[in-house]
Amino acid sequence: MADGDAHMSSPQAILFDTFGTIVDWRSSLIEELTAFGRERNIVGDWTSLIDAWRSAYAPSMDRVRKGELLWTTLDKLHRATLDRLVMEFGIKGLAQEDLAYLNKGWHRLRPWPDSVKGLTRLKKNFIIGPLSNGNVALLVNMAKHVGLPWDMVFASDLFHHFKPDRENYLGACQLLDLQPKEVMLCAAHNDDLKMARSLGLQTAFIARPTEYGPHQTKDFAADEPWDVIAANVDDLADKLEAVRET
Amino acid sequence: MADGDAHMSSPQAILFDTFGTIVDWRSSLIEELTAFGRERNIVGDWTSLIDAWRSAYAPSMDRVRKGELLWTTLDKLHRATLDRLVMEFGIKGLAQEDLAYLNKGWHRLRPWPDSVKGLTRLKKNFIIGPLSNGNVALLVNMAKHVGLPWDMVFASDLFHHFKPDRENYLGACQLLDLQPKEVMLCAAHNDDLKMARSLGLQTAFIARPTEYGPHQTKDFAADEPWDVIAANVDDLADKLEAVRET
Repeated sequence: MADGDAHMSSPQAILFDTFGTIVDWRSSLIEELTAFGRERNIVGDWTSLIDAWRSAYAPSMDRVRKGELLWTTLDKLHRATLDRLVMEFGIKGLAQEDLAYLNKGWHRLRPWPDSVKGLTRLKKNFIIGPLSNGNVALLVNMAKHVGLPWDMVFASDLFHHFKPDRENYLGACQLLDLQPKEVMLCAAHNDDLKMARSLGLQTAFIARPTEYGPHQTKDFAADEPWDVIAANVDDLADKLEAVRET
Repeated sequence: MADGDAHMSSPQAILFDTFGTIVDWRSSLIEELTAFGRERNIVGDWTSLIDAWRSAYAPSMDRVRKGELLWTTLDKLHRATLDRLVMEFGIKGLAQEDLAYLNKGWHRLRPWPDSVKGLTRLKKNFIIGPLSNGNVALLVNMAKHVGLPWDMVFASDLFHHFKPDRENYLGACQLLDLQPKEVMLCAAHNDDLKMARSLGLQTAFIARPTEYGPHQTKDFAADEPWDVIAANVDDLADKLEAVRET
């Protein structure tokens, strides 16, 4: 164990932030959209478009949170942003079906190298699931595409809320019929863990220092003494096995 | 293919009724409660109690459907029924934790012999999930206990409705971002398939003629020409592979 409570008890379930923590969205999308542009001979600054796409993520969810939009899935928020960015970046020649295909790039994100191995190990002893702002279709398609062995998918459209709204964290605990202290959130983002801890969940931090590429400004390390600080998902399995054996 | 539409197109997702279709609730509970009684030297007509427990299933959900009860999970309905039946059957010596343990017998039901093999095959080509009146905790615990390889768990507490309310069938399609015609329900109960078909879903029937033991009165065979009629879940995989290959 790293920092944190020496009297920590083993959780029953471990939930995972997904974009950034489990999958490497930026490299996946850069590779996919760049290849798409090359094959179709469509010129565009795909890398900047992807960074702008992700920059619009939090503001687009905030529009739902503030009530400016009724409940809207992340797939639909992604698509609205993509339509705007394609115009702003002056990218020509994309048909409606191309835009639909590119938007589903978020369903085809690659996991970090340790994710599938670590989750497969953790699944033996714990209930595992994403606790993500993605919608069910996005997260289920992603899991099937790359083999994420979830027991249950805690998508934002189950709650009609986006993290860090408390409804997502507490809603997942309620559906599992577990107390927050019996559930651990694992995330590469300190803010996500801060909310989870404030609601009574256990916390595990994994650094993903290349998530945002050259634009990463935070989350290089744990900001607080989270219950577990692990190098990656596989290392989290090591550390939790050690807790179970004590 | 058996009966039904020769032009049937392959579904994207296959949802399964669970109690009776995937798991053999009656034999599992008889075995478990009988063994419990023997070990604890508690006398009771466990088999009759289990049949009465299941007989109370539909009426208890109807109380929620009619608004006599606010949303209540199946775990809680099961527990209320169990508490009543233990009194009615004059079973003595059960502590609160015993009742909680016995109620969780529904989380430990055994699959029919073909279920895990068939689901594992189907998972390669289709999104698979239960569409059940069980709650998330019950269905996730059951899946982990016996290895049901669900991609997503469409439990009744995601919808705050019980089948055959349309909200469960259509809600699952919506969460998957699929049209009803892209989704198949597989069930051992003609009534469940009737509602699914009326809402546009594809249908697959599997007979489970021993589900209710000597008390079974219906569902020995398909009442209508469902899209697929299969001997069991493994045979359903055979038949759907044949469709995909045409």
